[in-house]
This record gives sequence, structure tokens and C-alpha cells, in this order.
Amino acid sequence: MAVESHRIQIETLGDSQVLDLSHAVVRALGRGRIRNGTVTVFVIGSTAGITTTEFEPGLAESDLKEAMERLAPEGGSYEHEKTWHDDNGHSHVRASLIGPSLTVPLVEGRLTLGQWQQIVLLDFDTRPRRREIVVQVLGE
Amino acid sequence: MAVESHRIQIETLGDSQVLDLSHAVVRALGRGRIRNGTVTVFVIGSTAGITTTEFEPGLAESDLKEAMERLAPEGGSYEHEKTWHDDNGHSHVRASLIGPSLTVPLVEGRLTLGQWQQIVLLDFDTRPRRREIVVQVLGE
Amino acid sequence: MAVESHRIQIETLGDSQVLDLSHAVVRALGRGRIRNGTVTVFVIGSTAGITTTEFEPGLAESDLKEAMERLAPEGGSYEHEKTWHDDNGHSHVRASLIGPSLTVPLVEGRLTLGQWQQIVLLDFDTRPRRREIVVQVLGE
Repeated sequence: MAVESHRIQIETLGDSQVLDLSHAVVRALGRGRIRNGTVTVFVIGSTAGITTTEFEPGLAESDLKEAMERLAPEGGSYEHEKTWHDDNGHSHVRASLIGPSLTVPLVEGRLTLGQWQQIVLLDFDTRPRRREIVVQVLGE
Repeated sequence: MAVESHRIQIETLGDSQVLDLSHAVVRALGRGRIRNGTVTVFVIGSTAGITTTEFEPGLAESDLKEAMERLAPEGGSYEHEKTWHDDNGHSHVRASLIGPSLTVPLVEGRLTLGQWQQIVLLDFDTRPRRREIVVQVLGE
Repeated sequence: MAVESHRIQIETLGDSQVLDLSHAVVRALGRGRIRNGTVTVFVIGSTAGITTTEFEPGLAESDLKEAMERLAPEGGSYEHEKTWHDDNGHSHVRASLIGPSLTVPLVEGRLTLGQWQQIVLLDFDTRPRRREIVVQVLGE
């Protein structure tokens, strides 16, 4: 059993942008030797989240964002913004609801994702960011 | 330290059906030898999710579904449906919000669930499905 | 590779209280020897959840709670309450949406959290509770 730790850097636009991380995670796994275990994908920061979706423009550019708008509207009133003279109260709330972490089984060198299931980063911040994602692999 | 990988197959009805996976997960653990570590329960596919709830009819058949309807209404307008001539835009959005993965500690052979806390699959698709769930166990 | 299991007890007020667990998790890690791997933080029970947020009063005392109110209003109608003559239907629904579990990478003895990203417990129950959280550490 071993631990391997990889990092992915990615430029985002914010505004609930959805980015496909699957290829970057697979490339990271290729730099290690573990073939069976778990892969934890974790985004550093409190205005982004990690989940899976079918990565296609309808969901990625419209539908997920609209659901987020229902949960925590961009134009809503946030104590966070009043305190810190900030504009990203909704970004924080959305990020907490999605969560920063996803764990996917790794079996015989392959992530057990469905054919239409991609690992995605949702960047909820109100400006472009350079995001750092940790890919932590445990197994053998 | 070792890795054990089990599979659970389950027939679902879709339409935000909530299914108790706890017994199937415990049975899967019984087929292995690991007694301390973590158990990751992961559903393959992008229209279902994994979480915990008290598995009783009120929550399982009504209350969770109603909250999901608030988040992503079945009768709403989804770009995903327009692009793919599909009817499950809401299913995808709900699945991304719940997430496909849950990790539960395993201590002395037992999952550390509460007495009224069951591992559940939520199938958000619009038709019956045969679901495959991966139970990935790491530990000793 | 090894497994270490720690427990954290914490008194909560319920009513969607947000509590910072980061220091308690770091203290738990200090009682063990693992420096690289994953840390799974899991709350026992079906009316609380674990996620991350910037732990500051605006988000912790107002904004997260308001989003939860949108998802599953306290004054809403819940089958769970009718069946069990209970008042915490909304607590269960909120807990299932946030989820009981979070996995954070551990690298060179440090959790890979952002500077403004804390591990938090959200207690959605309608009364004060004594919560038990399992901190399961896998690695080397």
C-alpha cells in the first residue's frame, strides 16, 4: 500500500463555470504506480466545489448554474458581503453545498466512472482564479 | 493494509426513488477481511447519488423528493433536454448536487453509522434502471 | 500504511448551527503518526452534515442557514413529522443534502485546506445535541 499526491493547476473564469477535470486526473494517475484503491479529488479554497456530471454544454453552461441560482441567488442579500465588503456571498454558500471533495474508486488502473460521468470543478467565485486541486491516491 | 473491491447491483424505479444500501454494503464487507479503514460507496452514472438518511417512508418517499423538486423541478426548462431531446435534465442536476460518492469509517468491523442513519442510493432518472455501485474498502 | 481512528465530541445548539472542527481535527491528527494520506471526517447521525466554509459570522450564522431554509424550510410540511410526531423533517432533508462525510488529503503532516477554508459541522436538529465525529486517517 502506498500514498501518491498529485497537483493540478487550472485557470477558471468563475461565475459558476464548470470545468472537466477527468483527463487531468487520469494524467496525474499515469505519473504514479497505484492501480487499485481510491482517488480523492480536493479543491483548495472555499468558493469552489467538486462533483460529477455529464459534461456537455447544456448542463455545464446553463442547467447547473440555474439550480445554483435557485439555492443561493447571485443578487441575494448576504451577511458575508456586508461584513467584508465582498461580492461573493453566494459563491461561498454554493461551494459549501457542493463540497470540495470527491472520492472515486480505482480498479485495475481505471476510475470507476460511468461513460457519461465526468469529474468536474465548479468555480463559483466572481472573478477568474487559478485553482489548485489535490489528487490524493491511496492503494497498491 | 489492503484494498478490496465489491460490486452491488440493484434494480431501481427512478423518479427520485430512495433505496437503502446499508445491508448490501454490510454483506459486501462480509465477503472481505478488512476490519478497520474506510468504505467508499460510489454509484456509476450521472443521474443518481449516494448519501445517508433515516430510511423511513416519510423521508424516503416524500420529503427528500420534495426538496429535490425545489432545487431542480421536474417540469423546469433544461438546456440538456433541448440539446439531447431527453427528459432528464432535472435528474442530472439533482445527481450533481447530492454527489455520487460517500466515505464511511470502518472500525472493528463495523460502519460508524448512527442507529437511524442508513446509506442510501437516490435514483433521479426518469425510468427504471439497473444500477451498479462500487464498494471500495481500504484498510487492514 | 496504517489506519488511525479518532473521536471528537462536541456540544451543539442545533438550529443549523455551524461549528468549526478544524482545530479539533488537527489536534486528533497530532495524537497519531500518519503524515501522508487521507483524513475522513464523518458525523454520526442523520440530522447533521460536514462540509467546508470560510468560518466567519456572516456565513456561519446567517447565509448558510438562509440557503438551507430555501432548500428545506423549517415551517414546511414533512411526512416524516406526521409519521413520527417529530419536528425535525427539515433537519433530515438538509443533512442528506450536505452529507455526513468529508475527505481531505493529508500531505507532509498538513491538511490541504485553503487559508479561508475550515472543516465545519452543521447541526440541523431542533435541539442541543452532543455530537460524535469520527476522524479516520489512512496513510503512512
